[in-house]
Amino acid sequence: MQAHAHSASGQAGPRRPAEPGMALAEVETPALLVDRATLEANITAMASYLRSRAPGIRLRPHAKTHKSPDIARLQMAAGAVGVCCQTVAEAEAMVAAGIPDVLLSNQIADIRKAARLAALAGQARISVCVDDVAQIALLAAAARDADVTLHVLVEIDVGGHRCGVASPEAARDLALQIAKHSQLSFDGLQAYHGRAQHFRGYDERREAIASAARIARQAATLIRQTGLACETITGAGTGSFEHEAASGLYTELQCGSYVFMDADYARNRRGPNNELPDFGHALSLLTTVISAPTPERAVCDAGLKAMSLDSGPPSLARHPGLTFTGASDEHSTLTVETGPAPAIGTQLQLLPGHCDPTVAMHDWLVIHDNNVVAALWPVARGR
Amino acid sequence: MQAHAHSASGQAGPRRPAEPGMALAEVETPALLVDRATLEANITAMASYLRSRAPGIRLRPHAKTHKSPDIARLQMAAGAVGVCCQTVAEAEAMVAAGIPDVLLSNQIADIRKAARLAALAGQARISVCVDDVAQIALLAAAARDADVTLHVLVEIDVGGHRCGVASPEAARDLALQIAKHSQLSFDGLQAYHGRAQHFRGYDERREAIASAARIARQAATLIRQTGLACETITGAGTGSFEHEAASGLYTELQCGSYVFMDADYARNRRGPNNELPDFGHALSLLTTVISAPTPERAVCDAGLKAMSLDSGPPSLARHPGLTFTGASDEHSTLTVETGPAPAIGTQLQLLPGHCDPTVAMHDWLVIHDNNVVAALWPVARGR
Repeated sequence: MQAHAHSASGQAGPRRPAEPGMALAEVETPALLVDRATLEANITAMASYLRSRAPGIRLRPHAKTHKSPDIARLQMAAGAVGVCCQTVAEAEAMVAAGIPDVLLSNQIADIRKAARLAALAGQARISVCVDDVAQIALLAAAARDADVTLHVLVEIDVGGHRCGVASPEAARDLALQIAKHSQLSFDGLQAYHGRAQHFRGYDERREAIASAARIARQAATLIRQTGLACETITGAGTGSFEHEAASGLYTELQCGSYVFMDADYARNRRGPNNELPDFGHALSLLTTVISAPTPERAVCDAGLKAMSLDSGPPSLARHPGLTFTGASDEHSTLTVETGPAPAIGTQLQLLPGHCDPTVAMHDWLVIHDNNVVAALWPVARGR
Repeated sequence: MQAHAHSASGQAGPRRPAEPGMALAEVETPALLVDRATLEANITAMASYLRSRAPGIRLRPHAKTHKSPDIARLQMAAGAVGVCCQTVAEAEAMVAAGIPDVLLSNQIADIRKAARLAALAGQARISVCVDDVAQIALLAAAARDADVTLHVLVEIDVGGHRCGVASPEAARDLALQIAKHSQLSFDGLQAYHGRAQHFRGYDERREAIASAARIARQAATLIRQTGLACETITGAGTGSFEHEAASGLYTELQCGSYVFMDADYARNRRGPNNELPDFGHALSLLTTVISAPTPERAVCDAGLKAMSLDSGPPSLARHPGLTFTGASDEHSTLTVETGPAPAIGTQLQLLPGHCDPTVAMHDWLVIHDNNVVAALWPVARGR
């Protein structure tokens, strides 16, 4: 494996783009940078907001944003009750790092993945979502084989039209199915409206979450009428959490992107009172200008294999005068709108449009304090 | 590093989704499959086409498509003269695997990357592109320090408007600059028209490559008038190579995608004589249906972190009745147009819209013969 070599620390692992103590100018590009001060300010700001505005509501940040046990530990230290994960491999990384409470906010349809998840339940509190009896059967079998308890949430479609049962009645029926299994513990509802995170208008997001909460409330009421408790109503993301927090229904928020702050989320329009924390862009993609063939064009060494363009182009807010024209596998082409073209060798910092899939392309987060490398934190990008 | 564990072979490395001998149904998803018979047929078909249609032209396949030393070896065995790489890390992986001739079809603007490249020139013939004196200075310094010869091509912009000098005169001037350095050897021109690969119309592609060849021919003529040889004119890709092959100018073709065949390239319209090989889709993304909440919707476990959507959605040609609706980090949502919804647990094979950045998201290629896993080949996805 040429991609893996022995690092300065003596540990086998992917090639390291930098070492602690280096200036950013010494970092080999493309590399993902995390400004530690901004990261910590974002974590503190979210914790403070929830403490003052929604004191009874738990924060369970989504670790799919960062895939970083180091960042998860900072979130826990700031009061998070645990993390969400989107894959079993992420959950394995978080439990191995000592995170005591993990929600797999997703469905499992493979007995080996169910067994991997059950294996974690001996070390941490593990919960997982279902929207069909087929998944319940797999989880029950895996929990029985491992002699553990898995906590289970029924996912209900509250407008995202991805996973989730289609009606409150179906949610109730599935909760009753879970309750039949002695090694499964019914916890409540997953009621995540992913699409609402990216509705640009404030009122549009508010109305979408009001509708989501109505559907989830009906389901919770029907479930409680059967005698089952429905303690957890979990959902929300960085784009909409103020509305879930104000709903009087949600008990837990799953915001993830606030730690890094995507260029795309930053495009959402704010509400009339504008009381949300002003999350900063903690994540940037460091890239080098490798070609500047005309006064109007610069080409840098970060392309489709270093950043995801699914939610729009990266922001060039840190480099006024340059705009993004397009990307290929290992290049981005920039147009020089004003000022001189950057010289070959110039480093630029792009702000990714969508942090989560961008992080998943990299092996390391390069943590810096005031532009000096402080640490390299691994990204748990395995499957 | 949770992402790295000891595999069954005892070697440290990323988690393996399968082992040889398994049926595809046993492969943990999402995983990239390579149908060996189709892969080998594609490699053979390209070699045969060039032997019969363009016998003097060398094939130097682009390894950025597969990042796989194993596939590069198959290409060499079928007559390739070497490979192209887009990054120094890819070149390191190819040289370590014994590939004797590597062209870095890209610019370097970092002395450490130049030094890494020069270190390879002791083991293999290494060439690299430039479009500015700044890159020449770095390469000359690195070659001198390592006491090696680096072969250098001047990249000229023939219509792609990415890297490359803007005129034949500038190409000549840069060739003369290269010739001043005793440890750099001027080889010729990189004349790659990336955008033309994706022009849908046959005539449009033909005219774009005719224009590219005119520009490159002017540059070669000017260079030869100085007394320098200009032996290599290299370029082309899977979308346009029939035109470069017929140009009478190009000496070397860089096609990469033909080994896997992207869904996007398959959308190109063919010429009137339709003499091109009919490359098959050797690469597919194996995914599992994890949720089927309504009769019209299925959700599978391959999303933005398992495939790149930059060149359009994956093809569902292997699953008539299903269409692609959208993707999020770890999900794709499919619409059931006809027939019953696939049951939870059903495996599907998506054909990626763009293979190169999709491969770069994965650690392994799962090679299968008639749906039985034959081998896992590592992807050299490091930096």
